[in-house]
Amino acid sequence: MSHLILLRHGHSEWNEKNLFTGWYDCDLTEAGRQEATAAGPAITAAGLAPTVVHTSLQRRAIRTAQLVAESLDRMWLPVRRSWRLNERHYGDLTGRDKAETAAKFGEDMVKVWRRSYDTPPPPIADDNPYNPNRGAAYATLPPELIPQSECLADVVERVLPYWYDAIVTDLAAGHTVLVVAHGNSLRALVKHIDDISDDEITELNIPTGVPLRYEMNAAYRPSESRPIIERYLGDPAAVAAKAAAVAAQGTATR
Amino acid sequence: MSHLILLRHGHSEWNEKNLFTGWYDCDLTEAGRQEATAAGPAITAAGLAPTVVHTSLQRRAIRTAQLVAESLDRMWLPVRRSWRLNERHYGDLTGRDKAETAAKFGEDMVKVWRRSYDTPPPPIADDNPYNPNRGAAYATLPPELIPQSECLADVVERVLPYWYDAIVTDLAAGHTVLVVAHGNSLRALVKHIDDISDDEITELNIPTGVPLRYEMNAAYRPSESRPIIERYLGDPAAVAAKAAAVAAQGTATR
Repeated sequence: MSHLILLRHGHSEWNEKNLFTGWYDCDLTEAGRQEATAAGPAITAAGLAPTVVHTSLQRRAIRTAQLVAESLDRMWLPVRRSWRLNERHYGDLTGRDKAETAAKFGEDMVKVWRRSYDTPPPPIADDNPYNPNRGAAYATLPPELIPQSECLADVVERVLPYWYDAIVTDLAAGHTVLVVAHGNSLRALVKHIDDISDDEITELNIPTGVPLRYEMNAAYRPSESRPIIERYLGDPAAVAAKAAAVAAQGTATR
Repeated sequence: MSHLILLRHGHSEWNEKNLFTGWYDCDLTEAGRQEATAAGPAITAAGLAPTVVHTSLQRRAIRTAQLVAESLDRMWLPVRRSWRLNERHYGDLTGRDKAETAAKFGEDMVKVWRRSYDTPPPPIADDNPYNPNRGAAYATLPPELIPQSECLADVVERVLPYWYDAIVTDLAAGHTVLVVAHGNSLRALVKHIDDISDDEITELNIPTGVPLRYEMNAAYRPSESRPIIERYLGDPAAVAAKAAAVAAQGTATR
C-alpha cells in the first residue's frame, strides 16, 4: 500500500489576469502562496507525510512545492522535476486574454480548445512575445520533445512515461509521493489512475491548492473506488466552490 | 572541462545567537537570505550558469539553494540532497553558547573542538534539548550512520562517498554543479579537491554566501592551481572581511 497526493499549484499571476498561460513561466500571486502554505496542514491532518515530491519545471509549481514542504516542516524532501509534468502547452493562445479570445473566436471555439480531448490550439508563433519554448529549462531537451501546442491527449501521452518510470518507481519503493503540477498534467494523471473516458475527463476541474489523495494498490490503481470529490483534503464546501470557480473561467462574460 | 561552485549557506539564526549549531535545523536570518540572493548575480557575472544543485538536508542550506536558484532565474534546476553534505555534528556542544563554552572549558579546549582535525566534541546527550538526531529527515537512515559527534576527519570520511558517487557523476555528465552546504562539509570537500593537509585545512575559513568557483580537469581536480581567496566570486575586500569574521567566532570576548 502506498500513498499518492496530487496538488495543483496555487493561484498564479496569469490566472489573476485571466490569460492563457500554458508553458509561460509566471509566478504565484500572494493568494496562491497562501493556498500552497495551507495545503501542508491539510495533508498532515489527513495523517499523511510525503517522503518525496515531484514537480514540473515551472516556477508556479516549484514555488508551491517549496511552500508545501516548508509548511509540512519537511524542506529536506527529495525533489524530482520533469518537463513532462508541465502544464498543457497552449500554443498560440499563450499570453492571450481568455475573455477576449472567447469574444474573438466564439465561446464554442474556445471551449473546444480548452476542453476538447484531442483538438490542440493553433501552434505557437515564433513572434508570440510569450513564446516559452526557448527558456533555459528546456535548452538540453531534444527539440522534437518541445511542443508547439498540445491538446489533453498530447499531455496524457507525454505524462504517462513519467508516471510509469518515475512516480510508480517511487510508489513501489514505499514512498508517500507528492506531485505538484498543473490543471491539465494532473487531469492527465487522474484520467489514467481512475481510468476516466476521453469525454468525461474534459469535465473534471481540479481546484488549485487542494491536495487530492489516493491510496494505491499493488497494481498502482486506487485501492478503493470513490468519487474524486471525496478524495480532496480540506473542507468539502470550500473544495466544491473552488472547482466551480475553475469551471467558470474562459467565458466571455467573465 | 566542467565547473564546480561551492556555496556556504548565508548567516543563520544560530550564527546570530553565537550558538554551536551543527545538525540543529535553524533557518537563515534576513541578512542570510540577502546573502543567498546576492550569490546568484555573482555567479552570473562570472559567466557561469549552474545546471544542477546539491544540498544538505538542513533548511539553512536548502533555503539558500532556493534563493540562489531564484536569483539565477533557474528555479527549475534539478535538486539532489544528502545528509552527507550536512554540517559537522557538534555533539553535546549543540545548542551551547560559543562564548560561554569558551569561558567554561577554556578557549584552548574550544579551539581544539572547533579546529582540531581529529578530536570530536563530547557525544550528544540524549537529554540535550537540541538533539537533532530524531529529526524526520533522518528517520530512514540506518542508525549507525547518524553521528553522535564529529571531528573534521569524520566529516571528510562521510562526505567523500557523496563526492565520488553524486557530485563527480554530475561533473562527468558535463553539469555545472552548485553545492550549497556548510562551513565544515565544504571544508572537507576543499581539503580533498585542493589536497590540503590535515593541519592546514583547520585554518581555512569559508565565508557565508560567497560562491567559490573551480574549473575541474578530467581527473576532477582544479584545472589550474591558485590561492583559494582568488576563487571566490565577488569583491575581494568584502570576501577577506567575511573570512576574518568567521575566524573571529568562538572567542570568549565576543
